[in-house]
Amino acid sequence: MNFYDKYLEARERNSSVLCVGLDTDINKLPDGLEKSIHGMIEFNGGIIEATSQLVCAYKINFAFYERYGAEGFEILKYTLEGIPEELPILADAKRGDIGNTSRAYAEAVFDYFGADAVTVNPYMGRDSVQPFLEFQDKFVFVLALTSNPGSEDFQRLESAGKPLYAHVVEKSMEWGDRSNLGYVIGASRPKEIEKLRGIAQDNIFLIPGIGAQGGDIESVTQANGNAPAIINVSRSIIYASSGSDFAEKAGEKAQFYRESLNLSQ
Amino acid sequence: MNFYDKYLEARERNSSVLCVGLDTDINKLPDGLEKSIHGMIEFNGGIIEATSQLVCAYKINFAFYERYGAEGFEILKYTLEGIPEELPILADAKRGDIGNTSRAYAEAVFDYFGADAVTVNPYMGRDSVQPFLEFQDKFVFVLALTSNPGSEDFQRLESAGKPLYAHVVEKSMEWGDRSNLGYVIGASRPKEIEKLRGIAQDNIFLIPGIGAQGGDIESVTQANGNAPAIINVSRSIIYASSGSDFAEKAGEKAQFYRESLNLSQ
Repeated sequence: MNFYDKYLEARERNSSVLCVGLDTDINKLPDGLEKSIHGMIEFNGGIIEATSQLVCAYKINFAFYERYGAEGFEILKYTLEGIPEELPILADAKRGDIGNTSRAYAEAVFDYFGADAVTVNPYMGRDSVQPFLEFQDKFVFVLALTSNPGSEDFQRLESAGKPLYAHVVEKSMEWGDRSNLGYVIGASRPKEIEKLRGIAQDNIFLIPGIGAQGGDIESVTQANGNAPAIINVSRSIIYASSGSDFAEKAGEKAQFYRESLNLSQ
Repeated sequence: MNFYDKYLEARERNSSVLCVGLDTDINKLPDGLEKSIHGMIEFNGGIIEATSQLVCAYKINFAFYERYGAEGFEILKYTLEGIPEELPILADAKRGDIGNTSRAYAEAVFDYFGADAVTVNPYMGRDSVQPFLEFQDKFVFVLALTSNPGSEDFQRLESAGKPLYAHVVEKSMEWGDRSNLGYVIGASRPKEIEKLRGIAQDNIFLIPGIGAQGGDIESVTQANGNAPAIINVSRSIIYASSGSDFAEKAGEKAQFYRESLNLSQ
């Protein structure tokens, strides 16, 4: 099944637009788990088990696994294999390079890791994004406006009356359609979410930054309206407890976010 | 020794501004080598042995190894361990994410793989680049103007009278200095290389795109003048022959590029 349909079905089945981000940091593993690669595997398994009825997708950030090299890639693959088949997986890898190189990155995330979607950096333009879009049934989230402080440095530069991030969205919409192309827009940017909905009415927005990063649920869901969205929460859920009840508490927090998101719509 | 000094010494010792890019594609391995991960290791070893007296650095593109997952990462690490200690290694990984995530990527390239420098995508701004700059003795090449067709999509958008890539260079120069910060500028952009030398006089420019990508040696070296540069050639050298003499021919091609670059200066 393609990513888009998988997402729609999961959203319906679990009544949820929540995505849990598996940004697992070995140093933040709860008490009782080994501060090791084995601890990470156990931790991820516990989080997935406690939240898989409550989400529309999982997002996994490659950096937190790459730091451990080959072994880290093994944990990453193992973790992804433990995610129920019917839930879409977003590889948050922020890749992008010239054509033949992007093709190799796409093979990594889609063929080797079996992810359903990937985040891609648009700086290098069309031929750096296209190879990802060419994978059948897969999906690409292009970075538009992120929620970190550095997003002020270049993403908002005005050119011909529009900020760079709006150019990115407008231009890249020529490269795919809603079945394979969406955008990353930080939760701390409700005004811009609303504005971008004027350009990209029905592309999925991946919206990170709720919770630890300070984005506000109400303003995000109001800005997005009824358009398709995936709202990602990482740290506030996975580190809800630093005790042996970490999975249970993560489940409760995921439940809380799912309900809050549903109620605010 | 820090990257900058290592580069200066290698350039002096080998009289070379040439960098060989180890973008090894399993499908392009020469006859006689197994089309496998073992073949890639043998190939890389042969290329390094034949060229290590002729270069100022090696660049390795992560995508070509990541596509094989954990095993690919092992070959990557193994290949890097085979590069003579005195030659700097550029991890061409084009990473970049919010602060704590970029920190994890930096640990991967610098601590795990032992690279001396990394390429970073500037789209997410300062806090996505800073964690790489904070690694002592390491070096960051920020993407400025690339040589692929897609570089026309966003990198040249004019804002306040200057293209985006010039904003990237000007702004990011506040984040580091020539000891830890340089720029990637495609060889097909001699005019822009010259212009950027007005802003970044003595930061190292990493200039890919000579050879298979069509950049012209004479115009690049003239545009760059006497400023520090690393000129990367990948495919034209490593695939100089598809026979069992691949290493010998790669050495001859590297010799040719080294001389041509020296003569044109």
